[in-house]
Amino acid sequence: MKAEWSRRHVLGLEDLSADEITTILDEAARFKDLADRGEARHTLLKGVTVCNLFFEPSTRTKTSFNLAARRLGADTVDFAAAASSLSKGETFIDTARNIEAMGVDHMVVRHSTSGTPYILTQHLQTGVVNAGDGTHEHPTQGLLDLFTIREHRGTLEGLTVALVGDILHSRVARSNIWGLKKLGAKVIVCGPATLIPAEIHRLGVEVSYQLDDILERTDVINLLRIQFERQRGAFFPSIYEYAQFYGMTADRIRRAKKDVLILAPGPINRGVELTPEVADGPHSVILGQVTNGLFVRMATLHLMHQAREKHLASK
Amino acid sequence: MKAEWSRRHVLGLEDLSADEITTILDEAARFKDLADRGEARHTLLKGVTVCNLFFEPSTRTKTSFNLAARRLGADTVDFAAAASSLSKGETFIDTARNIEAMGVDHMVVRHSTSGTPYILTQHLQTGVVNAGDGTHEHPTQGLLDLFTIREHRGTLEGLTVALVGDILHSRVARSNIWGLKKLGAKVIVCGPATLIPAEIHRLGVEVSYQLDDILERTDVINLLRIQFERQRGAFFPSIYEYAQFYGMTADRIRRAKKDVLILAPGPINRGVELTPEVADGPHSVILGQVTNGLFVRMATLHLMHQAREKHLASK
Amino acid sequence: MKAEWSRRHVLGLEDLSADEITTILDEAARFKDLADRGEARHTLLKGVTVCNLFFEPSTRTKTSFNLAARRLGADTVDFAAAASSLSKGETFIDTARNIEAMGVDHMVVRHSTSGTPYILTQHLQTGVVNAGDGTHEHPTQGLLDLFTIREHRGTLEGLTVALVGDILHSRVARSNIWGLKKLGAKVIVCGPATLIPAEIHRLGVEVSYQLDDILERTDVINLLRIQFERQRGAFFPSIYEYAQFYGMTADRIRRAKKDVLILAPGPINRGVELTPEVADGPHSVILGQVTNGLFVRMATLHLMHQAREKHLASK
Repeated sequence: MKAEWSRRHVLGLEDLSADEITTILDEAARFKDLADRGEARHTLLKGVTVCNLFFEPSTRTKTSFNLAARRLGADTVDFAAAASSLSKGETFIDTARNIEAMGVDHMVVRHSTSGTPYILTQHLQTGVVNAGDGTHEHPTQGLLDLFTIREHRGTLEGLTVALVGDILHSRVARSNIWGLKKLGAKVIVCGPATLIPAEIHRLGVEVSYQLDDILERTDVINLLRIQFERQRGAFFPSIYEYAQFYGMTADRIRRAKKDVLILAPGPINRGVELTPEVADGPHSVILGQVTNGLFVRMATLHLMHQAREKHLASK
Repeated sequence: MKAEWSRRHVLGLEDLSADEITTILDEAARFKDLADRGEARHTLLKGVTVCNLFFEPSTRTKTSFNLAARRLGADTVDFAAAASSLSKGETFIDTARNIEAMGVDHMVVRHSTSGTPYILTQHLQTGVVNAGDGTHEHPTQGLLDLFTIREHRGTLEGLTVALVGDILHSRVARSNIWGLKKLGAKVIVCGPATLIPAEIHRLGVEVSYQLDDILERTDVINLLRIQFERQRGAFFPSIYEYAQFYGMTADRIRRAKKDVLILAPGPINRGVELTPEVADGPHSVILGQVTNGLFVRMATLHLMHQAREKHLASK
Repeated sequence: MKAEWSRRHVLGLEDLSADEITTILDEAARFKDLADRGEARHTLLKGVTVCNLFFEPSTRTKTSFNLAARRLGADTVDFAAAASSLSKGETFIDTARNIEAMGVDHMVVRHSTSGTPYILTQHLQTGVVNAGDGTHEHPTQGLLDLFTIREHRGTLEGLTVALVGDILHSRVARSNIWGLKKLGAKVIVCGPATLIPAEIHRLGVEVSYQLDDILERTDVINLLRIQFERQRGAFFPSIYEYAQFYGMTADRIRRAKKDVLILAPGPINRGVELTPEVADGPHSVILGQVTNGLFVRMATLHLMHQAREKHLASK
């Protein structure tokens, strides 16, 4: 299946076919397997430079991409766009083209405006991977969620997965919806009506406003982060009320399926999206998600790089 | 002696035996010796990832740990906790566990709260080395002070060492007191009464409020930094008065022992803790301390890593 | 010619002979040639540590030096002086000496005060390369401008080069003037009278206040950046007026020499120093300058390092 991969950019799961998603997951599984057997470091991207171009602050995703690139043998460079020439009036395209001109091969891009990574692909020759753009997509987060579910259940096919919380602002939700549907899962989005986009059912998902209503028929619950820093208006009366209706508690775990999987993209607000008891309990695979993020990003960068090499050779 | 080392964490000199401290110093001396003969780079930590997890700003100590880890062949990653998810409401334990889940082997931790590195050892499988916690300890600073004194005098046994200045807030003082006593030195703490903890004599140190009183019988004077940024109250009337009573001057050098060693953990305030004449004079070993810091940190990381490997193999 | 190189520091083009400048350009051309043939990475500085010591923020120049050093096989460390002990009262010389004591071999220094890199050479044993000091010099920027012109025209000899804009505050202008004159070019400085130093003709340059007057007889036009952040007073009535008189437009390109080269040190203000049409047009070599910056910095660091090795061996 890997022979089919030809993308130099990974901008979102909406663009990828089921086969392409599976190719990434399989490649990630291979890297994880090798690491478990002591082969954690590779030279597949030796001599290659990967730049983290983050126009929005992020320590966690950036660190994960950094470690993934270095495990492949790449050189990494961080370009903290906030502290940079952007503040001197330069456009972000000029900034990116300048970095490219310094000999960078791949850009890992985060930006508060949806669509920015796509725009960059129109102006650069480097590979571009979207590390989160506005409320659009965060494909490697979606992929690591898929990977983690598949790892525990063997397949996504036929599973019912609930995305709980702030669907309106969540790029993680969007990437999950596309990926889960393509791999055959049924998706329920669940949250306060104010945080669920009006036309979301058009994406082929079920909508629920009561976590308790869907608890018994859900195999996987992905607890989206309440992004206090992203909400300009008041979308729910209080954190307390949110936690009452949508927080995952030991009590709700008891009423859920026996083998329910609890995911959360993190950083988590203990006592809000889930209680400490659930976060640290046997159903939680939260830290496994973080570990899998490394392998999914290694797989993504490796596949992109192979496509880039082929592309350059063909010119 | 090295065969006895079994600690995966280095949290403070209070915990270490004299033998363990000597093991680190000997290992550091070996690395320094190799570097002097052109073997500055090693592969002992090849494939290992060391994370600097600093919840308090520090450029100097972080850089020293970074260079030490890389000289051992390790990969390093900085996690600037201030700019990170902590500000999004995550607990510091969750932050650390997330970093661990990304495949980090050792954490170098600085935090403004005493005891934080210890707490992390209770929640992580990684090695933890304390790079300064509150007013508790800064063990590698203590070790590099011991190393520097031993390098110049051959032994700590029987020496009289004065720690001068702000004993109350100084983690460097605490690490020095534990280490010096264990290796057989006599310790005098000297400073304004407001900056000396009431019960400090219980640690087996002599207390002096007048630098001039102890000048003639002291082999080593360690001039602690006046940490303006750490003092919330007014502990002494003025910097001028502090410098008059506790500042090391050319005049005081003349009245001190002929071969007195002047140490300072830095960054120094020229004209406060010591005059430029003293800082750059023949008794000062301040820059030697910085160089030795590199080797002491290499030794610490290497010993910790050997213990970790043994621990993982035994599981 | 390379055999003659003996400088451990590169502080400005004023100090360098024409032969020395040519040596750097030739060495840079060699590195570029090797990169074009697939040999982008070297081990010439293996085991060497290069520190970026930036007392003024800069992402672009720092990244370029970082990538250059790593392509030579060096280890790099950034020392963000703003966030460091400087704020704790330490002098910048003490900061630099501390970094040196950690085992750094070369310092890349940027500082808002002219002459700072020179002062450091008086107190350090490391190599020092000036990455921009006040309004004095920015030699590697000057070198990459020379390199780019020579690359396109074969020689600097006999060319007429105009530096347009804020000559008063521009260290880039100063480095260009010295370098261009030494390699045989005629230099015109052109800008508002308020932004041209009174005695600049003493450097052997022609002065013009009207870009349109010199357009037809100029081979190369280097559009200096209007540094809004550096101007304390009002040096010209408005940006609009500046762009009218000194901005490079498609119309001016039509009136210029057919093969005129357009350079700009960047980051550019589109619509001020030049229009997007010009910036992205066939005469612009702006991105080529960025790429060449990498090779010029590799050449500079490599030559400095050879001189340092010779110097250390001779002691």
